[in-house]
Amino acid sequence: MKNKFQINDPFWSYYQELVGKVMLPYQYEVLNDSLDDPDIEKSHSFENFRIAAGESDGAFYGQVFQDSDTAKWLEAVAYSLMVNPDEALEKKADEIIALIGRAQQPDGYLNTYFIAQNTEKRWQNLQECHELYCAGHMIEAGVAYYEATGKEELLSIVRKNADLIYRLFITEKREGVAGHPEIELALVRLYRVTGDARYLTLAKHFIDVRGTNPNFFAEERQKSGWSLWNMNPQNTDYTQVTHPVREEQNAVGHAVRAVYLYTGMAMTAKETNDPTLTAACERMWDSIVNKRMYLTGGIGSSAEAGEAFTLDYDLPNSTAYSETCAAIGLIFFAKAMLELTHDAKYADVMELALYNTVLAGVQRDGTRFFYTNPLEADPAYIKKLPGLQHVYAKRPKWHACACCPPNEARLLASLNRYAWHEDGEILYSDLFISGEYRPDAQTTITTETGYPYDGVVTYHISSAKKITFAVRMSAWSPLTSVAVNGSSRRYRLGNQYVLLENLVDGDTVSVQFDLTPSKMYANPKVHADEGKCAIMAGPLVYCFEDCDNGDLNQFSVSRIGDIHSVSIQDERIGNVNILKVPAWKFAPSDSLYSFQRPKAEPAVLTAVPYYAWGNREIGKMKVWIWEY
Amino acid sequence: MKNKFQINDPFWSYYQELVGKVMLPYQYEVLNDSLDDPDIEKSHSFENFRIAAGESDGAFYGQVFQDSDTAKWLEAVAYSLMVNPDEALEKKADEIIALIGRAQQPDGYLNTYFIAQNTEKRWQNLQECHELYCAGHMIEAGVAYYEATGKEELLSIVRKNADLIYRLFITEKREGVAGHPEIELALVRLYRVTGDARYLTLAKHFIDVRGTNPNFFAEERQKSGWSLWNMNPQNTDYTQVTHPVREEQNAVGHAVRAVYLYTGMAMTAKETNDPTLTAACERMWDSIVNKRMYLTGGIGSSAEAGEAFTLDYDLPNSTAYSETCAAIGLIFFAKAMLELTHDAKYADVMELALYNTVLAGVQRDGTRFFYTNPLEADPAYIKKLPGLQHVYAKRPKWHACACCPPNEARLLASLNRYAWHEDGEILYSDLFISGEYRPDAQTTITTETGYPYDGVVTYHISSAKKITFAVRMSAWSPLTSVAVNGSSRRYRLGNQYVLLENLVDGDTVSVQFDLTPSKMYANPKVHADEGKCAIMAGPLVYCFEDCDNGDLNQFSVSRIGDIHSVSIQDERIGNVNILKVPAWKFAPSDSLYSFQRPKAEPAVLTAVPYYAWGNREIGKMKVWIWEY
Repeated sequence: MKNKFQINDPFWSYYQELVGKVMLPYQYEVLNDSLDDPDIEKSHSFENFRIAAGESDGAFYGQVFQDSDTAKWLEAVAYSLMVNPDEALEKKADEIIALIGRAQQPDGYLNTYFIAQNTEKRWQNLQECHELYCAGHMIEAGVAYYEATGKEELLSIVRKNADLIYRLFITEKREGVAGHPEIELALVRLYRVTGDARYLTLAKHFIDVRGTNPNFFAEERQKSGWSLWNMNPQNTDYTQVTHPVREEQNAVGHAVRAVYLYTGMAMTAKETNDPTLTAACERMWDSIVNKRMYLTGGIGSSAEAGEAFTLDYDLPNSTAYSETCAAIGLIFFAKAMLELTHDAKYADVMELALYNTVLAGVQRDGTRFFYTNPLEADPAYIKKLPGLQHVYAKRPKWHACACCPPNEARLLASLNRYAWHEDGEILYSDLFISGEYRPDAQTTITTETGYPYDGVVTYHISSAKKITFAVRMSAWSPLTSVAVNGSSRRYRLGNQYVLLENLVDGDTVSVQFDLTPSKMYANPKVHADEGKCAIMAGPLVYCFEDCDNGDLNQFSVSRIGDIHSVSIQDERIGNVNILKVPAWKFAPSDSLYSFQRPKAEPAVLTAVPYYAWGNREIGKMKVWIWEY
Repeated sequence: MKNKFQINDPFWSYYQELVGKVMLPYQYEVLNDSLDDPDIEKSHSFENFRIAAGESDGAFYGQVFQDSDTAKWLEAVAYSLMVNPDEALEKKADEIIALIGRAQQPDGYLNTYFIAQNTEKRWQNLQECHELYCAGHMIEAGVAYYEATGKEELLSIVRKNADLIYRLFITEKREGVAGHPEIELALVRLYRVTGDARYLTLAKHFIDVRGTNPNFFAEERQKSGWSLWNMNPQNTDYTQVTHPVREEQNAVGHAVRAVYLYTGMAMTAKETNDPTLTAACERMWDSIVNKRMYLTGGIGSSAEAGEAFTLDYDLPNSTAYSETCAAIGLIFFAKAMLELTHDAKYADVMELALYNTVLAGVQRDGTRFFYTNPLEADPAYIKKLPGLQHVYAKRPKWHACACCPPNEARLLASLNRYAWHEDGEILYSDLFISGEYRPDAQTTITTETGYPYDGVVTYHISSAKKITFAVRMSAWSPLTSVAVNGSSRRYRLGNQYVLLENLVDGDTVSVQFDLTPSKMYANPKVHADEGKCAIMAGPLVYCFEDCDNGDLNQFSVSRIGDIHSVSIQDERIGNVNILKVPAWKFAPSDSLYSFQRPKAEPAVLTAVPYYAWGNREIGKMKVWIWEY
């Protein structure tokens, strides 16, 4: 099946081809343990399925959730096939799916950690063991692969698994929820594609019972008497089970767990028309976006706290966790809220996380990946200081916990689904990407733009009927103008969308966004950013690197002077606009403290998009920089 | 015995009386477990000696170095008796000394942890067990108590103990050094008071062999097969045994261990005239003072790294460790370097650590104590965020590891020894404190000053002979003038001292220091202080607190305008000069990030001396503040 929106874009087509031609083949080799490279963490994810299917000896290896790497890879393949058909890749996927089918147990159970071993321990440790999490990812893969190829094999596998879970938790009334949310959103997707209401019932059940018994994980630990990681079951915030979801006031705990849960909540709220659940989602959103999110759209400010949210305005730059998966999950949450409320503010953050943290997560060549995304990096300190053990100055080729790389692949390959959304007759343009959008058989909207480096977006309407169409007024564009057929025209604005009605065949809509580079300032309550500024141009957050400027410790940004944008080509980071920023260069000093302000002379700093950092010579990087 | 320099000072006499009248009696009650207060950590230090002496049942309790609390208390009592004779206090001390004598073993061994229990484990775990550390503190107590009272009982106890250690490590050639240095400096003091060269030989031995076998602690662990805390013996930097002390390039490891070691090195270098050891001390000093010291004279920037030095310019403010004992140890090191080289730069830092971190370590009322001394505190985060578990917003009444409180007492009670030092005929005035200095029977120099709040220091000379006298040109006074008998006169300046020769009876020397409040700036390499300034007036570092200003998050300091000093009286913090600092107050904002600089209106911030913080309503505190 083709996507309703086909991308043909100077900025994004590169990444979508990269997924199909480099990332997915590379990740297949990694998951298949075919690459002999000491820098590549062993995966064993496919092999675990072979062992579970009785087709290989050897023991299970890897994380308890190692299956989810295979599931996310399959889901990514599905999206990629919709963008770039690839028989060889599809054949590989079909073989893995057949293997998964052979590994599945007669009762529908499907988790290699508990098939290849520990069979007696199934369902006894929901807090740590990720059985429902892995089920959720495989369900998403089954749904996506069916949508992409029409093939039902994986879909029926995951339905059998979902039916087992339904029997356990609904029919047999087993207590408990997933220690790592994910299945909730997956079940809504399964409901949407199959129409089987039991899956929505099950999703709603997991959301409704969550937090009704905060002691559940402590009780199951006592009952089973075993623990995988010795996770503290009293730390109920970490797994978002301290309160029923409708009573929670703040976004808390492990950031990926949180946004996966909130996404499932928002999708369920939409399907069940649940105002209290919608209100809970909006509360979580406000907590994140107004108090606990980095400028880059990254979330989860502490490694020590457990890749987790901490407290309002605690947003340290160098020790930031800001996991790539958490930014991807925030995009899921934003997309679900967008479809629930049709408010452009959700698309603003979706775009922010996409163009910055998500893109920063992958090396330009597609074979290295960041797990954590700090806003300041100093290789002299990274790995050498406590609190910086989780940070990297260069993207590793793989990770022992490899959740991020396939998550990158599935998001970039499915980007087509994020550019537009619909509400009845209204077509919402959320992301500005060149391509062809076919909401129905009669209509095609062709978008042309050089966004995010060129603020002009042109829509050509081809339709046998009148259409209504809403363009997002990006929060990253201070001044935006809209014209239809060359003449700016009156429009209705709602939820930060410009609503254009009665457009007909041949109409052209032109939108001009203001992408002038601008300094950004954090709320003074954010201690980490006191006295500092950052720079954005449109949705792009910029950063400074040693390789463009020399030792960053010598510089501050000047309070005066204009920032100039220069378009460059550099194969290591692609075609980008770099920024020339008025700055001060400090004279070297041997003294630690001085009565005088550091002596400085005027200088110019070069800034590159944050997503591009770490692709060239390794050195210091700063997003927030002293404004002097 | 009386001190050569008797303090009679508007600033310091309060603290010396506080030690004698409040701190030492309070600490006696705590060490004696006589106070029934759930907020006071149990000490058991005296009781451990009773158990070791066979005069009480019950089991040893506390740290393996719990004996050192008693030792430091006794040493502090000795100094206090020299300042304020107190029969009752002296009687208490005599009783404890007698008890210690009864606890000592026939062979001279003296450590209650290994007398009351684990007798077979003596000397098997030098890395963790602090036997040499405790011996060192008891030796210092014995020396001080003899100097103060002329009583030899404790001195002979510690000599017996030192003789045992000499036999083990010199005569019997036992391998190893102290996991926590301290005995080195103590042995030099014992040598100086007894004239017994074996103690100097032993001190030099411990210094010379240190680091010659970096694997020693790993080897002893393997041999003994037991560990107290599971300290990593491979982390040789932590205990300063990676290299021979003469080859080490940086101040590394646990900060208190480091400066206690360097002090012993400097004292040994002076006694043995050892240029390579002197050079090593100067290298360690430069590493600390030019790259690894807080503006407050605090050292040891990381709790996670083990109350330790980390890397150059890594000086975080809110997570700072900056242990009170480390600042006290830095004063020991500075004093030893001062007596070794007669360079005023050492007195500058001695004064900095004394007036700021050391004084901040004790509540104004003498019954509460800081262990860690951050340069920024926010009660909303302290204890709630990882990395802030070691920080306090209010001084606790006692600590489970109680090294700091008695260390405060012994330093403040012995301050008389830090104001002046001598080199042959030259008398060096290092600290500016009112009182009478009697270097010999013929000479009295009377100092009058309101320092640190009044920069005028007047010396009246009464002497039957011509004297030569050197006044330190404080680095904290940008402009200093000197006059003799009212007329400024030519002088020779060396090592930052003004040398005044041929002074005769009746001469008056007047020194005017410039204590005008001034902003201080950190080297741009210090990430934590980028865009910020701090304020000093003379040696005093100032800070801002919520209780004077309201929510500090609303303010930055203005780049322009004069700072005004106002003298106030407040029993909670004493008579101080507070500062009125031109500032900006930000308008409250709900948004996390903005295109505009925070809107601000002119305001005035009140700053108080850093040493006074945390004595009033608890709130946020900042030394370094955004300059806007």
